[in-house]
Formats: sequence, C-alpha cells, structure tokens
Amino acid sequence: MNSIGHLLRLTSFGESHGRAIGGVLDGMPAGINIDIELIQQELNRRRPGQSTLTTSRREEDQVIILSGIYQGKSLGSPIAFMIENQGQRSEDYDKLKEIYRPSHADYTYQSKYGHRDPRGGGRASARETAVRVVAGAIAKQILDRLGIKIIAYTESIGTISLPKDFAKPSIKEIEASPLRCPCPETSQAMLENLEHTRKEGDSLGGTAICRIEGIPAGWGEPIYDKLSARLSYAMLSINAVRAFELGNAFDMVKHKASEVNDSMYIKDGQVRHRTNHSAGILGGISNGEEVFFRLAIKPTASISKEQKSLSTFGEDRILSVKGRHDPIILPRAIPVIEAMTALTLLDFHLLHRSRSQNEDTTP
Amino acid sequence: MNSIGHLLRLTSFGESHGRAIGGVLDGMPAGINIDIELIQQELNRRRPGQSTLTTSRREEDQVIILSGIYQGKSLGSPIAFMIENQGQRSEDYDKLKEIYRPSHADYTYQSKYGHRDPRGGGRASARETAVRVVAGAIAKQILDRLGIKIIAYTESIGTISLPKDFAKPSIKEIEASPLRCPCPETSQAMLENLEHTRKEGDSLGGTAICRIEGIPAGWGEPIYDKLSARLSYAMLSINAVRAFELGNAFDMVKHKASEVNDSMYIKDGQVRHRTNHSAGILGGISNGEEVFFRLAIKPTASISKEQKSLSTFGEDRILSVKGRHDPIILPRAIPVIEAMTALTLLDFHLLHRSRSQNEDTTP
Amino acid sequence: MNSIGHLLRLTSFGESHGRAIGGVLDGMPAGINIDIELIQQELNRRRPGQSTLTTSRREEDQVIILSGIYQGKSLGSPIAFMIENQGQRSEDYDKLKEIYRPSHADYTYQSKYGHRDPRGGGRASARETAVRVVAGAIAKQILDRLGIKIIAYTESIGTISLPKDFAKPSIKEIEASPLRCPCPETSQAMLENLEHTRKEGDSLGGTAICRIEGIPAGWGEPIYDKLSARLSYAMLSINAVRAFELGNAFDMVKHKASEVNDSMYIKDGQVRHRTNHSAGILGGISNGEEVFFRLAIKPTASISKEQKSLSTFGEDRILSVKGRHDPIILPRAIPVIEAMTALTLLDFHLLHRSRSQNEDTTP
Amino acid sequence: MNSIGHLLRLTSFGESHGRAIGGVLDGMPAGINIDIELIQQELNRRRPGQSTLTTSRREEDQVIILSGIYQGKSLGSPIAFMIENQGQRSEDYDKLKEIYRPSHADYTYQSKYGHRDPRGGGRASARETAVRVVAGAIAKQILDRLGIKIIAYTESIGTISLPKDFAKPSIKEIEASPLRCPCPETSQAMLENLEHTRKEGDSLGGTAICRIEGIPAGWGEPIYDKLSARLSYAMLSINAVRAFELGNAFDMVKHKASEVNDSMYIKDGQVRHRTNHSAGILGGISNGEEVFFRLAIKPTASISKEQKSLSTFGEDRILSVKGRHDPIILPRAIPVIEAMTALTLLDFHLLHRSRSQNEDTTP
Repeated sequence: MNSIGHLLRLTSFGESHGRAIGGVLDGMPAGINIDIELIQQELNRRRPGQSTLTTSRREEDQVIILSGIYQGKSLGSPIAFMIENQGQRSEDYDKLKEIYRPSHADYTYQSKYGHRDPRGGGRASARETAVRVVAGAIAKQILDRLGIKIIAYTESIGTISLPKDFAKPSIKEIEASPLRCPCPETSQAMLENLEHTRKEGDSLGGTAICRIEGIPAGWGEPIYDKLSARLSYAMLSINAVRAFELGNAFDMVKHKASEVNDSMYIKDGQVRHRTNHSAGILGGISNGEEVFFRLAIKPTASISKEQKSLSTFGEDRILSVKGRHDPIILPRAIPVIEAMTALTLLDFHLLHRSRSQNEDTTP
Repeated sequence: MNSIGHLLRLTSFGESHGRAIGGVLDGMPAGINIDIELIQQELNRRRPGQSTLTTSRREEDQVIILSGIYQGKSLGSPIAFMIENQGQRSEDYDKLKEIYRPSHADYTYQSKYGHRDPRGGGRASARETAVRVVAGAIAKQILDRLGIKIIAYTESIGTISLPKDFAKPSIKEIEASPLRCPCPETSQAMLENLEHTRKEGDSLGGTAICRIEGIPAGWGEPIYDKLSARLSYAMLSINAVRAFELGNAFDMVKHKASEVNDSMYIKDGQVRHRTNHSAGILGGISNGEEVFFRLAIKPTASISKEQKSLSTFGEDRILSVKGRHDPIILPRAIPVIEAMTALTLLDFHLLHRSRSQNEDTTP
Repeated sequence: MNSIGHLLRLTSFGESHGRAIGGVLDGMPAGINIDIELIQQELNRRRPGQSTLTTSRREEDQVIILSGIYQGKSLGSPIAFMIENQGQRSEDYDKLKEIYRPSHADYTYQSKYGHRDPRGGGRASARETAVRVVAGAIAKQILDRLGIKIIAYTESIGTISLPKDFAKPSIKEIEASPLRCPCPETSQAMLENLEHTRKEGDSLGGTAICRIEGIPAGWGEPIYDKLSARLSYAMLSINAVRAFELGNAFDMVKHKASEVNDSMYIKDGQVRHRTNHSAGILGGISNGEEVFFRLAIKPTASISKEQKSLSTFGEDRILSVKGRHDPIILPRAIPVIEAMTALTLLDFHLLHRSRSQNEDTTP
Repeated sequence: MNSIGHLLRLTSFGESHGRAIGGVLDGMPAGINIDIELIQQELNRRRPGQSTLTTSRREEDQVIILSGIYQGKSLGSPIAFMIENQGQRSEDYDKLKEIYRPSHADYTYQSKYGHRDPRGGGRASARETAVRVVAGAIAKQILDRLGIKIIAYTESIGTISLPKDFAKPSIKEIEASPLRCPCPETSQAMLENLEHTRKEGDSLGGTAICRIEGIPAGWGEPIYDKLSARLSYAMLSINAVRAFELGNAFDMVKHKASEVNDSMYIKDGQVRHRTNHSAGILGGISNGEEVFFRLAIKPTASISKEQKSLSTFGEDRILSVKGRHDPIILPRAIPVIEAMTALTLLDFHLLHRSRSQNEDTTP
C-alpha cells in the first residue's frame, strides 16, 4: 500500500514520468501554523543539480498545495499537494525498455505487476521521495516548535569516512558541503574520489547518520510499534537504504553488558543517562536522550560503464546507461531521511496525546 | 498497538507475570493443515534451560489452542492461543520495584504509562516473544509447503565470529550447537567465553543471520511496504534487536556500483542473478534469489555484577541483579527471528494473491 | 477481519462449540479503574434463561481476565479475556450437519470457507456477542465517568409497539421487563404474544432504540468516519440487526426542511438546539444533543415449525429445528447494542484527544 | 480519517472552495482496462444543473487523472485524480460566516476543529462526493466485467412514493427521469410537488433504493466486516444519508420467522432461495441472491425561507439562505450511492481472492 503512518498518514501517488507526483497528508490537527516557504526550501534541498557531481537535470520542483492549508494554517482536513513532472525525456528510457537493468527494480516490477511502466522508473524512481520531503517538511515545522530537532548527514562515501567520533555537527556545517558531509577535509576528499569515479562511469554508496534531540521520554509503543521498529521501517522504505543500525549497535554488541549498560542519574531534576549506548530507545520507547541511527545507502545502480545485462526476451546484452546520473545519491537522500523521521515522530506524538493520562480520562 | 500484519494479523497479549500470555492470529485461509505438534516444537526451541548457559528457569510452556483450528485444519476463523504463566517468582522482582535497572525498559515504561507493572517486566519481558513463536510456527508450516525455507543462526557472540564466508548451514548443524552457531569450533570458543563472562556476572551480545530461500520474484510492495522495510520493522520489534542489515549492506556500500550490481542471465529457463549483493530484494520486491539479513542483538541487560543505578525516588543505588539470567539471549532469539520472518512473508503471500493477475480480474 | 476500532481496537476469537470464546481489547490508556464485577454483570444481562421465553440453556458465562488489568486498574497493555464454552451439546447439531438451515449462515459460510464448522454455528453463532459485551462493559465504565450514558431498549416485537413518543425510560424501567420493554402494559402484551408464538414453534423479531446522552459537541470525523457511519457499521455487525435509522429518519425525510431543521439558541451559556430531528449528529459530528437510533432485529431463524429446506447434497428436506431456541432474540441483543455503542464512542474519544487543540501542539 | 477500504482504499482530499478536490485510489491490480470516458460520464450524472429543479450552478467538473492509469490500463500504482474548483463565489458565503446555519455542520465543525473554513462548507460540502463518484466509476467498470450490476434510484420524495412493489427498473428508465425516479407518473407528481416546494423557499428529502445483482455467494467477512455492516457504513458516510435498511427489514421484523425465512432449492444446478427476505446477505456474507437496501436522505438544509438561527457570537438571528440551492438533493446522491457500493464490493472481491482456497495455498 502507498500509505504510511497511523494517526498521521501520508498517502503517496505518481509515476516519475506521469503528469504529477504528490501526496495526501491526513490527520494533521487543525489550526497549526504551516509555512509553505519552508516546505519549498526542504524540497529544494532534495533537488539535483546542486553541484557538478549530482545530476544536471534541473527538476524545477514546485510544490502546489491543493487542500488542507488556508491562510497559513492547517484546516484539519487532508493536506494534499502535487509536483508537476516537467521535461521528462522519456526517449532516454526508450532504449531501456527491453533491458532489465542490473540492480534496478525492472525485473522485480515486471514480476509483480506483469508489466513495467514504459516511461521510466515509474513508482520505483527516487523521484517519489520528493513527496516524502514535502510531507516531512510540514511535520518538521511542528516538531521544531515542540523542541525536537532532526539532522542527518553523510558519514562516509565509499571507503572515505568522517573521523571516528566526529562531534555532532550543526545544520550549517552540513549544508556547507555539497555532499552534506560536515567535515570540510573529509568532504573534499570525497569530492575528489567521486569525480574520479564519475569519470570512470561508475558510482558510489555510503553511510548516513541521523540524530534527533528533544524527544521526551515515553514515546513509542511496546511490542510491534517500537519507536526503533517504526524508524527502521520508515528508513528501509527509502530507495537505496539497505541497513538500519540504532546507535552503534554492531559495535555495541561486541561488548559486555557492564560496558554498555546506560546507568541513570538526576541532573537538574531530570532523569538522565551517563552514557547513551541505547541511542535513546529502551524497550522500544524513548528515554529522553538523543536518538541516533546509521544507514547504509547503496551506489546508484545506473552507470555508464558497460555491464552485462539481460534483455526482456532472455538474451544477454551489454548495457551502458546513458544520460545524467548521479555518481552518488546519498547527499540527496539526506532530506528524505529527515522527512521520514519527522513523519514517524509526529505520528507517535499524536498517539501519545491520545493515550497519555490527564484529568480527562482518569476519573 | 499490539498487532502486526495486514492480511495476516497477529495480536499479542499478556504480561510476563500475569495469568497467561497469548495471541490471536487472524486472516488465515480456511482448510489449511496445521500440525500443533510442530508449533509446540518451535516453542520448545525458544525455551530456556537448554544448557548451563541459558537461564535455568524451567518455563514449561505449553501452547493451548483456544480457537480457529479443528481436527488439524484451520477453520478460517481467528486462531487464538495462550500459554499459561507458571511459577512466576514475583518476589524476585519485589526488590527491583524501586529501581530503574540500567538499559532496561523500567524508566521508559514508567514515562509512558505513569506506572510500571509491579510484577516484573510486564509487556517489556522477552517472554512475550513466545507468542510470536507460536504464530510464526503456523506461518512456517504453510510457507514450507510453498517451498519457502527460513533459517536463522548465531553469527557472532562478543568478538568471536563465524569464519568469514562460512557456507550456508543446515538446520541440523545449527541445532547441534547450544548457541545455534553452526560451526562446532566457533561454537565451542563462544561457550568457553560465555562461561567466563557468566562467572564475572556479566553478559554478551552478538549478531545473527537469517536466510530465506524460495521466495518467488514479485513479493513486496513498492514505496512504504517494501519487503525489506517490513522485514526490518518485524526484526526491530524483537526485544534486544538493534540493527537490521540487508545482505552485507554496510560492506557493499563501500564498493562501486560496477562491483556490486547484480547482472542477470537465464538458467533452466529462469531469470537468475550472477551475484546476490542485492540480497534478493530490489525496489522493495523479491527478485527470486535468496533473501538474507544480519541483526545486532544486545547483551542481556540484567547482570549480577554491580552497577550504578537510580532509585525511583531519584537516589543513587548500587544494583546487582540476582536470580537466573542468561549471559546471552541471542540463541533464544533465533526461533523468534524465524517466526517474525515467517509472519511477514505469509502476509505478503496473501497480499500477492489478492493483487496478482488472473482470468478472474482481467476481463 | 475480526477486529473493530481504530485507537481502541477489539479483536474477537472463538467458535461457539470450541474451547473458549474471548477477545483482546487494545488501546486502553493505563491507570484507569476497571471494575471486573461490572463486566460480569453486563455479561449476565446477555445470558439466556432469564425467563421462560428465552432459551433455557444455562450458559454459565464467567469472564476470565487474562491480561491488561491488575489490582483493579488498566496497565495500558492489551486487555485479553475469555469465556470458556461449557456443555456444548454438539450432538444437537449433528443432525443439522447435512442441512442448510433457512435464513441461517450455513450456506454462506460454506460458500466462503469451503466448509462449515461441524460443531454448530461456529463464528456465526450469536454466542460471539458475549465477547462484545465484555469489551463494551469496560468502555461503558469509562464513558460513564465522562458523563456519557447509553441505554437501549425494546421498542416493538412483531406488531406490538411502545406507545408513540413514549418518554425516555430509565435503566430501571427497562430492566424490570424480561423483554427489556420499559412500558409494563406493552411488555405484558408482548409476552403473551410471544408465548403464543413459541407454542406455534415460531419466532418473532422487532425493533430496538438506543439513546446516548452526554456526548460533547465535536466527536466524529468528517467524510468516511462520520459518527453516524461508524455507529451504523457497529450496529449492522451485530447478528440479526438488519437496519439502522438515525433518529426518526424515515419519517423525517417526508417533511420539508423548514419543519425538521434544528435551530440553535443559547441556554445557560451553552449552544443548544430547539428540536433534535438531527438526532445529535450533523455532518457526521456530534452537536451536543442526544444521539439516538432505531434498529430492526430479525426473528430467530431457528424454529421448530416445519420448514422446507435443502440438504448439502442438493436434496429437498423438511426441517424442524429441535432444541432450545428463543422465540425472540431482541431482548438479549440489548446489552450487545449498548456494548458496541460504547466501544465506538470510546474510540472517538481517544481520537478526539489526539487531534484536539491544546497548548501542546499549537505553538 | 479521510480514507475508506481495506485492500482497495480511497483517500479523499479538498475543500469545496479550495483549489481542487480529488482522491487517491490505492490497491487496484495492474493491467486492468479503465475507460476514462466512463468515469467522466458518471461524474456528469452527479452534476447539478440538469433540470430547473437542481441547482443552476454549472460546475464544469472535469476529472484529471494524475497517476496510476497509462494507455487505458491500470499500472498497479495509486490512481490519483483531481477536479479543479472553479467559479466559487465565496462572497455568497461571506454573509454566512457569522451564522450557524440550522441543520448544517457549521457548529459541529467549529466544535471539532476550533474554526470553520471561512470559504464555504469546506469538507462538509457535498462537493466532496464527486471524489467518490470518480473512484466508484473505476470500481464499477471492473465489477461490471465480473457480472455485478449496481443500480440506485429514487423511491420517494416527501410523501410521494413509487407504487408498492414497483418492479425492478432498468437504468434507462431511471435516467429518463430528472429525479431518477423510474415511474413516469410518480416522477411527474414529484416534480410538481418540488416546484411548489421550491417556490415556498423550502426543500424536501426522500428515500432511495439500491439493488445489486451478480454478487457470488461467499463475499463478506463474519463478525465485524459483514457485507451488510460495510455497506451500511459506506452509505451513512454519504452526506444527508440518515438510515440504512437492508431489504425491507423494518417490515420484515413484524413477521414470524416462518413467514420470512428464505428456504433454498436447486435451480439449474445452483443453490437458490425461494424468497429473498434476507436481501442477499446471511451472517454478513452474500448468498448469491440480489442484495438491496433502502436509504433515507434528508432535505437540503439550506433554504431561502426564513429560519431562526444563532450567530457565532450567541445572538439570535433570522436567516434566509440566498443563492442557488437544490430543493432536493436525492437525485444527485444516486450516483454517489452506486459509487460507494461499488468501492465496497470491489474491496471485498480483492479480499475474497486473497483468502479463497486454491491449489496455491492448500498443500
């Protein structure tokens, strides 16, 4: 199904080469201030063409609000929006119609639907993630006022990585890099490596980190809808994301409990934890500390380097994907990661309000 | 919410020290053969007390089918079942009532609910996973007949790991090890290390691998309900699971696309892939190859070694958790991993049937 | 699916002649006082054998709470409960195995599932409604403290009806009648008629009214989840209920708008309506006035009078259903109607809390 | 929430005076032929201005398909569509801003959301039903090919009604009447009465009947998602619909079981019923006979006749609603009734496919 969320639900629509993509964000309370300019800014962050490394396609993505917001406030009705598709050069894809591109969704979509959208990636295209960014930009505004700050950034590209234990960066440091890698030296090394890769007609993947501060203790549901489980689900739903690691879990599990258990103390009247190996989540519920996780994002599958391939008729072919393709998609995934995080958190906020105790329901 | 699944939905209930735990599995088609003995066998796999390393509590978990199965066949009605709780020594927990145990869900549950179940872990206890094993054991039977085989096993405990590229093991090799680690030498080294850790009053975590063969191409939904996203969600919903890595994603993303793209060819009239860096999933949909993933499972939080802790009144305390606690929970999580995988896959199978084309809906 | 509700969700299980029936009520906030004795009292109201007219089967239905309530308070975890089935005389049903009983669900279940539960009505039995009564009895307690009172009663049986515009009765007046008809004279006439019908080996249907006071203005969702739509859905889900009429809708639509529009005025600082042709719901949302509706409940399909029937082999048969069957089921449906109303309303209450504005989300 | 359906889910958006209304229909299998012209034709049936009696507003509603259909076939992706709002004379509504119109949703929306859309009815407007007609027109095409025919028509307006036991009409007879009343004499009497009512500045309501032929036995779910319960829910979700009567339930319940039980026999190798008092549904599941139901539809609340009213400041006001308002909305509701019926049925069809037995799942 093309919907996500329980009380705040995003429904997405649109093929990459159809008339428009868009979404319906249902469940937003009424009377909330929503700045449409901030939505467009987030959308611009996802836009390609921001450097010579990212694809030179100029997608002039303009969000059009169709409903649910009036005079800068939410009406309580569904917030529908669309982004018209422009300048799709379907002809670029014509040659690919008869090919199952390696590590693309061509064959799997064919297997599922009995056909492929002949106009390009269709729903499998990362273009759909623009829808998430729009919806997430709305959620982010509300979380921001609740004191919840979400930032994501590039940790590594190929084998080049941020220095171990690089301090938490600011949004400014992140956005200063075309690769959204907050360490200038690392970013520069990545850029040079990517330029080399691009010339080879190849592409790279990497890892991203997302950090969230300000989640109060008590969000998340036990058992299936753990905060961690829902974040993982949201992240793995993003194109090219292939792994979700809460905190430094793969390293943490090499240690004894006595080394990684987080003990508590009181600071300024608040329960705090001396360490944060739990990455802010215990039993699926937030503990008041920073939540952070790491994602693996695979290399762009489309490369101009020649590859063995298979035609839809079962014949071997040599494929060289022409056209404008990023040698790295990770930096453009950063705003998508933030958006999906925001949607997940705001859903839990609404859920928390319905369940938490107050005089209303505790007679 | 305490339910998971779309067309095949498991609803779970019960606190670890209440009268019973159990579940309702709704959506099973009618007339399916279900072997209750196989359910009990799976449940026994999760049982503690299988070696000196796992907790010596003898939970005599007997599944009682309350509805939905008659004369060995599914009725099409909800399959409800329960496992009665026996011999809960709540007194063991009495001393812990006033303590927030480090890296347990005590404080987070308190924050969420405004209280804690005074009788033990309540819903946060891993005891709830027995419910999943029962439901999963039903799903596994059906998948098995569809030719889908799920196996999970221990890859590493602490710093001791299976040899790199250890070949896919058989269920027999896995079950031969009390740690469910299929390499006898590695298993033995792990056992010795664990015995040492246990004596220190400490515990360890590790990693598990799950492998699924036989999924036909075309399962999974694009966008949010990707097969990978749903598997990740199901896995992170398991107590102590902290990371989900599809295939070898964290390693794969260090490589160029040309090195990790999976090209296709025809073998015996079937589309196959020369490599499986995609771990069987492209665009969120199965491609017919083996699906496999790796999980990080944290050390048992309860240890007898002294730890700094906080009382519920905000006072510093030194805590040493008495009682019977596993120095490792990973081996007991293996059947839970398989169960949650089975439930996820069977849900997609039912969904696939409703959507796939046939003469019925293609007039 | 065997679940109902969005934030407060009841999942039902159990066949009439299986081991037990029961349910899981998920989504109840924690820390709510729940009186189990009141649950049992509601269940007793549904019990047969309350007069010579209702079936003489003595179902000693005792609710067993399996989870979710401890020391008289909700834990926030799923409230699971069961009622064990006792003394099912399956042999009574053995003779019916090869018959499709007229106006029963025998043939439709056979068509849907490819089989029938050979032990009696299975899921189609009205016995399942005991599950609803238990869950509803919990919801009623909370609504009661919120000032919301739900009463249902018998309006007509066969052609005998309450006097036109009979004033709203009290619960005491309703329960004083074995038929739950609050007018003693009408009740007596109904009883005599029913006794006559019973002797003929026949049965009767009738109509019920449900009235709810105290719903604040603003509950319900626009568009699909209108309060009226959800009530109608809940009511038609009850066995034998065949019609839902909000207020006196079938009469109201014969009038001009000027005769049935409800104008507003201020009384004691509150917005009130001079008339209540809208039955408390406008645009699918409560307006603060009494919500009331009327239901049509069909005659018990099982009668001892001889009927034409069809065997499962396609042969004509003459059927005379032996055993103990009510000549009227309506009075026993009354607590079920109240229960389903309560579950629907409490779900909307929780939804309302998550959406309504307060300082929390209106920065 | 603004979504309806389980496997086939319609999400609706748009305010009556916003930029556009529209919807997303998710869950349609791929490769299905969809005739967009037929969608527009259905939409035209709902359009006002078809006679002097219906409102003279010329809503030039043109459906724009945004996604999900390509070259006349469903892609399997969400079918999104919109209808742009044109020529909204918001000024007509300006005067109404400070008034709670009697029997409108003004006060209830204010109570729910803390504000009202100042541009007209917003979501409460019947304009939203155009969205349902579009989605339903898609569902109808598929049902039609499956041999399922849905027709709805006007039974009564005010006190003028079709002759008792008027035979089932054809779509042609229905559409020949501007009131969608298939009896020419009755239609003519209704027209004259309505013209009279219109001149008085008043409006009328009435009843509609919907009939569905061709549903195979076995559709519907037991317990909560009974076919009858889901149809009732869908119908009561339509603006102005206030009652749902399956078959002739209110009359049927006055009879003894022996008079209204439907016995079965074999005709041409098929199980059939001698009578259809059950209106095609038993135990919530279709029995293969015609399903039919009756709806009560209230008079248009907006009338030019003077009415007592209340200002939003709590002052008494005399209101006379100017502008173009139908003296009857029932005929325009007919295509909406058919559309919601179609969406409900196609959802059950998809569900049926996932559950029904075949060699695939009955190993």
